[in-house]
Amino acid sequence: MKQRIGQYLLDSLHVNGVNKVFGVPGDFTLAFLDDIIRHEGLEWVGNTNELNAAYAADGYARINGLAAVSTTFGVGELSAVNGIAGSYAERVPVVKISGGPSSIAQQEGRYVHHSLGEGVFDAYSKMYEHITAATTTLTADNAIEEIDRVIHTALKEKRPVHIHLPIDVALTEIEVESRPKAYEHTPQNVEKFIQAVEEKLKTAKQPVIITGHEINSYKLHEQLEAFVNKTNIPVAQLSLGKSAFNEENERYLGIYDGKIAEENVRTYVDNSDVILNIGAKLTDSATAGFSYKFDTDNIIYINQNDFKAGDIVSNDISIVDLVNGLAHIDYKNETQYPKYKRSDMQYELSDAPLTQSNYFKVMNAFLKKDDILLAEQGTSFFGAYDLSLYNGNQFIGQPLWGSIGYTFPALLGSSLADTNRRNVLLIGDGSLHLTVQSLSTMIRKDIKPVIFVINNDGYTVERLIHGMEETYNDIQMWDYKKLPEVFGGKDKVVVHDVKTSNELKSVMDKIDADTHHMHFVEVHMAVEDAPKKLIDIAKAFSDANK
Amino acid sequence: MKQRIGQYLLDSLHVNGVNKVFGVPGDFTLAFLDDIIRHEGLEWVGNTNELNAAYAADGYARINGLAAVSTTFGVGELSAVNGIAGSYAERVPVVKISGGPSSIAQQEGRYVHHSLGEGVFDAYSKMYEHITAATTTLTADNAIEEIDRVIHTALKEKRPVHIHLPIDVALTEIEVESRPKAYEHTPQNVEKFIQAVEEKLKTAKQPVIITGHEINSYKLHEQLEAFVNKTNIPVAQLSLGKSAFNEENERYLGIYDGKIAEENVRTYVDNSDVILNIGAKLTDSATAGFSYKFDTDNIIYINQNDFKAGDIVSNDISIVDLVNGLAHIDYKNETQYPKYKRSDMQYELSDAPLTQSNYFKVMNAFLKKDDILLAEQGTSFFGAYDLSLYNGNQFIGQPLWGSIGYTFPALLGSSLADTNRRNVLLIGDGSLHLTVQSLSTMIRKDIKPVIFVINNDGYTVERLIHGMEETYNDIQMWDYKKLPEVFGGKDKVVVHDVKTSNELKSVMDKIDADTHHMHFVEVHMAVEDAPKKLIDIAKAFSDANK
Repeated sequence: MKQRIGQYLLDSLHVNGVNKVFGVPGDFTLAFLDDIIRHEGLEWVGNTNELNAAYAADGYARINGLAAVSTTFGVGELSAVNGIAGSYAERVPVVKISGGPSSIAQQEGRYVHHSLGEGVFDAYSKMYEHITAATTTLTADNAIEEIDRVIHTALKEKRPVHIHLPIDVALTEIEVESRPKAYEHTPQNVEKFIQAVEEKLKTAKQPVIITGHEINSYKLHEQLEAFVNKTNIPVAQLSLGKSAFNEENERYLGIYDGKIAEENVRTYVDNSDVILNIGAKLTDSATAGFSYKFDTDNIIYINQNDFKAGDIVSNDISIVDLVNGLAHIDYKNETQYPKYKRSDMQYELSDAPLTQSNYFKVMNAFLKKDDILLAEQGTSFFGAYDLSLYNGNQFIGQPLWGSIGYTFPALLGSSLADTNRRNVLLIGDGSLHLTVQSLSTMIRKDIKPVIFVINNDGYTVERLIHGMEETYNDIQMWDYKKLPEVFGGKDKVVVHDVKTSNELKSVMDKIDADTHHMHFVEVHMAVEDAPKKLIDIAKAFSDANK
Repeated sequence: MKQRIGQYLLDSLHVNGVNKVFGVPGDFTLAFLDDIIRHEGLEWVGNTNELNAAYAADGYARINGLAAVSTTFGVGELSAVNGIAGSYAERVPVVKISGGPSSIAQQEGRYVHHSLGEGVFDAYSKMYEHITAATTTLTADNAIEEIDRVIHTALKEKRPVHIHLPIDVALTEIEVESRPKAYEHTPQNVEKFIQAVEEKLKTAKQPVIITGHEINSYKLHEQLEAFVNKTNIPVAQLSLGKSAFNEENERYLGIYDGKIAEENVRTYVDNSDVILNIGAKLTDSATAGFSYKFDTDNIIYINQNDFKAGDIVSNDISIVDLVNGLAHIDYKNETQYPKYKRSDMQYELSDAPLTQSNYFKVMNAFLKKDDILLAEQGTSFFGAYDLSLYNGNQFIGQPLWGSIGYTFPALLGSSLADTNRRNVLLIGDGSLHLTVQSLSTMIRKDIKPVIFVINNDGYTVERLIHGMEETYNDIQMWDYKKLPEVFGGKDKVVVHDVKTSNELKSVMDKIDADTHHMHFVEVHMAVEDAPKKLIDIAKAFSDANK
């Protein structure tokens, strides 16, 4: 069968689960875009800029399992870099396609627009090598092999890959013998690793599992929960990877965030003698500045390409095989552990100014069983990661990469990944400023998320770290409630204003009663108010910078 | 004298001409920001995101001669990459300062936020190596030497440099023996090169100068014009570098843009037997897809680090010495050349829908002698580069890098560089979407530019290259006139709406009568209308992509 290389690439994306392609048009991609919009299984999602497109692709991939983002050479490609780096850090598989000048222009070193004007064409691909699991420059000869290789690498490593696609290569017709292959995991033998885990466990007096984001990346929730149920080992989650474990499971301990964790969780975890780190990363933001007190020699690392149990170490074993292999462990924990105290969903309503503390209590009661909850790094994330979730919820945050503004376009992506689910975003004004124009794309694509914007006049998280009164943490005051109208959403978005808990509850009731619109809620809170966890973590960060 | 390293860095920026520092706060820069806001000679300009900050710094540097932009590690650093790459391509000196985690965190490979979570801390600096003239990681030991080195390199090469500044290093006190040095150019002996130019000129029957952006970067306007006046060689400008030559000079030919140039300019230049390329780059966008017909063997290259006259070649001679050296050439051109026909500023007014053609005619008459004119890549640039400027005007465009959205934040920077001058921006709706929130910073900083936004419903430049009717070239329709209000500028910005040439003229009269406000003009034009030059160039680009 004759097919253009661009078409084969799109078929490969589609067979691997992609249904939407995010991006911004540019002249080195336009003809390739024709193939996107004509592809039966794909929808083009044009974004307001390339960083927003990359963030949206990340949000889509976290729900869908794989995403693709297409931009033009240089300008668009480099605008997307920060988004792709975040996907790399937090293990989210995104295929970044960068349309390039024609092969002949590149070979001859022509001074074309979007180049640095010096005849060099591989500089951007080299920049991407630092933040992707694989890169490739497609040619007529290598296309089939390389397309499959990099897309499968993205799925194997759950990390972004970069494809440089000269425009003439995209349009080149080649003979395609078979359809692109869907990625299939090739199991490795992990017997000796599993045995090492079992042996360690058999010595344990107080075992614990700390889990995190790689469980979400590899969607290993069921396998993990089966292992927990069989072995009765309690589970603490990091904020980096909330949703990794079913918070309704009776063996759930709660969030472990170092010295600021709930007293009984902290005590149990810090005194554990065998710590199974399953897909978790002990970062500064997840552990209040590395404030864990357990002996790190007691940690068994069961992470992607990072296994360690005493002297048994490997850097090339998949977490998939390891977590699947846990089913073979014969062990039963008999030690008592604290029970997770779920939020009782009790709150008081009043006409007093809304506080951060009360805001998150009311928010917990607002959540429904299948919601996707996004929380922006800042007051929103540090308040939201302590909410009690249902098993059906999915939580999206970005505490390792921590790029402010990320969740707003990510909301576009996560909403488009599954339009049957409600998406709820918690964000603050400081973050919203960075990526605000994504609202225009949400309106255009007719999605119906619920957006809560905290208006507290600036970068609260930064104020708490350093410079509470400094002008550099102020921002320009916007008329947030007019944003939907300015972006063409007058009839599609219902706008709300909240200053008290009574108003918050009343607005939530209206939202529940009207699922046919997007809802945009401006929530006023005091400048210096913040969730307790944020105050504690900010102090740890501040100390680390001295 | 004892001083913090951050203070020394700021002193070095200031002594080299920087008065504003652009950026976005982040926790690895906050304590350094204290030194910025307390520095007597510096003002902090907080931006809505880091790409906008980088664009603003570029616009500031084009007027001021040097700029600085500060962001945090990773997230902010990588968001700024596209802006810095544009500064590299078009030779604009910007000092990019990236605050980093403490040295000890880096040495120990800690999993800190904004890192990729793998203990690697030099990845972003390595990415910057591709798009900067120098990079450095500051330490207590190397700071004085390295700060001077990289800032002087930025000024020598007129290109961006990158400084990785761990937060503890910024705060480290060192003994400073002398104030930072202002960059001084060290002249090289260029006698043999100038002789080679003179010899070639003496054989010339039809000599011409093609000039461009490096004259703007190095501010060599007076030296170039003196050489032209002495030798009577006519001058054609590229659109890449408009403002390089005084368009009021009687030896000015006009814009040379290959096959689409005015007939008499094209004929004269294409038939020239000695072509002095002084600070110009023959890119695709400047030459309608490399459509020059002159013999490239006849070109004498007098560019930064790129001299060539026949067999005399050098890659390390400064354009400053070369252009200064031209004064020694003894030559007088006797050949006749065509006279530049300035716009006669004549236009007709009517109540018919405004056309692109008429828009630019009326615009030319609106321009005042000292205006800074910014034109966004797209219909605005391709219409504006044919306008007749006064010697006092400065023109800012970005035709080599061509990153849409660039000029909007660049307007913030160019306006802040000299608040006594009027800044006029021509931009379209498609580009505005990318960087719109910069308007909020303009309002906050109380600048008073005149902004014309063409509303023609999408990416017109892309439509002309490929996909006139395709949905990927559509954009969401915004209520543009409400933007100033939403960004907090109700009392500071006067909003206008224009559909006809009569309305355009009437609005311009109002703008001239009210210099105390920012003016924001929405200009409605037909989707498929475009300046003739854009239609021609788009066809050339389209052909190159086949």
